[in-house]
Amino acid sequence: MKITVLSGGVGGARFLRGVREHARGIPEAEITAVVNTGDDMWLTSLRIAPDLDSIMYTLAGENDEERGWGRVGETERVSGELRAYGIGWPWFTLGDLDIGTHLARTDLLRSGMPLSAVTDRITSRWDLGVHLIPATDDEVETHVTVEGGELHFQEWWTKHRATVPALGFVQHYVENSTPAPGVLAAIADADVVLIAPSNPVVSIGTILGIPGIRAAVAATSARVVGVSPIIAGAVVRGMADACLTAIGVETSAEAVGLHYGARSAGGILDAWLIDETDAAAVPALEAAGIAARAVPLWMRDPATSAQLAADALAL
Amino acid sequence: MKITVLSGGVGGARFLRGVREHARGIPEAEITAVVNTGDDMWLTSLRIAPDLDSIMYTLAGENDEERGWGRVGETERVSGELRAYGIGWPWFTLGDLDIGTHLARTDLLRSGMPLSAVTDRITSRWDLGVHLIPATDDEVETHVTVEGGELHFQEWWTKHRATVPALGFVQHYVENSTPAPGVLAAIADADVVLIAPSNPVVSIGTILGIPGIRAAVAATSARVVGVSPIIAGAVVRGMADACLTAIGVETSAEAVGLHYGARSAGGILDAWLIDETDAAAVPALEAAGIAARAVPLWMRDPATSAQLAADALAL
Repeated sequence: MKITVLSGGVGGARFLRGVREHARGIPEAEITAVVNTGDDMWLTSLRIAPDLDSIMYTLAGENDEERGWGRVGETERVSGELRAYGIGWPWFTLGDLDIGTHLARTDLLRSGMPLSAVTDRITSRWDLGVHLIPATDDEVETHVTVEGGELHFQEWWTKHRATVPALGFVQHYVENSTPAPGVLAAIADADVVLIAPSNPVVSIGTILGIPGIRAAVAATSARVVGVSPIIAGAVVRGMADACLTAIGVETSAEAVGLHYGARSAGGILDAWLIDETDAAAVPALEAAGIAARAVPLWMRDPATSAQLAADALAL
Repeated sequence: MKITVLSGGVGGARFLRGVREHARGIPEAEITAVVNTGDDMWLTSLRIAPDLDSIMYTLAGENDEERGWGRVGETERVSGELRAYGIGWPWFTLGDLDIGTHLARTDLLRSGMPLSAVTDRITSRWDLGVHLIPATDDEVETHVTVEGGELHFQEWWTKHRATVPALGFVQHYVENSTPAPGVLAAIADADVVLIAPSNPVVSIGTILGIPGIRAAVAATSARVVGVSPIIAGAVVRGMADACLTAIGVETSAEAVGLHYGARSAGGILDAWLIDETDAAAVPALEAAGIAARAVPLWMRDPATSAQLAADALAL
């Protein structure tokens, strides 16, 4: 059974861990993650790929569960030096182990390898059980339109904690980007395509904005099942509400489901998994042509994540 | 009093610390170090400048005195990751604090700044008391000719500990390089030019090989005083003997002095400071037109280094 998951970073990583756990019971299960790269950037001459790394560390069991991101047992010796030299963003601290990953990635990229091949090489260090493919090998950068100009997404997200009102999001160079090798086939040949409970605007939205990917999702013979990142009108993690507000979508499981839309009506969803507390939204979603089901959505631990994956696959 | 020192890394750093110490007693002393960059290289997409860094760390009081090189209190978290990813040279470990310096340098270079401006910016973090100028802003790389081919200098030096017989040294691109801004003026306008007790072949030899520098040393109105890196037929540190053998020069204070040669005979030296144990070489050096003096050369601590600097300046 071929399972393809469109995913952002931290939330997608937990979901993928659940999918992997659940798939242990499925004969010949193959899991592919198509990962957002819109948050990637060059910082102090290092190529940083936050979502790819969050997923890699989480699936490798190397993430810091307490903090929720980055490597466990991390230190910040290099960043301390960069601050002392006045180089880089003082509010954006990279861990030493994390810098090891960025340096390895940067060196392979500079040798001429595309990001997808670099990702294969870097992830081969661990037995992840999931094939990670960046949505594109091209450098697509999400910027945030704010009053008076534009901020890099990380500046808006990490420095300003999304408190500067966003007027919109721009994915620079996205119109000239192409899906990375394997992305379209992973969607077309899948038995099921899952949309992880990731940020609908800057994570899933960026993936779908790469020319060809939305059409592949629309055309696949696989069932497309999404999982809501919104529970009871609030984001499970991150600041997706600020992103949704900017594009005029209400922060609710129903509104996000309708924003993605039914495949039968030109959207991307066959089915939409929402939390029990949002059960009242089922009729409106069903009326729009989206099969909706209310289940416990909180991924408190690997077991509940696996149950959520099972629910998504059952839908 | 303007003092200009041509210098390699570790030995030159100690000597420069002595010059700075001694110069505290000289009104309006200005010390400039013209530093070898032939050992510089790109490694895992980082620009590494071993000699500039050895001098900077030593003058900043940040070097590891026990080990003799690198930063005190160093750790190797990033290099551990690079090894796990199979990236870089497993036998060439970069410390975390050191990587902070390399990343800062790399980022400034990639922004378009020449190495000399980058060095000004990086060294401004500390009150070094010495102006460091790379001998050239161009990428001149020392390679070692060995039986059957060529090795990068660091591969020969660090991996093979100079045990593979060197047939010669090649400074790639040196013929097209130019002295960094300030280098020729620092030599021409100096009151005294000192040749640090550094490797005569790959450190001082590389500096002198940059078109224009040897001629500037030959033409300066300053007195040019060298300090022998050889004591009693042995190198004080490093493996300069292997380098000298490769170019057919005996490992002795006398042979190195004669290799540099008297300015009056087309060489670069007015005077040559050798160790007491080598006093027997004085007549031969004097006969060749080089004022020679035998003094204690061992730089055991800052005080003896300062005394050596005083002796060199007195000569």
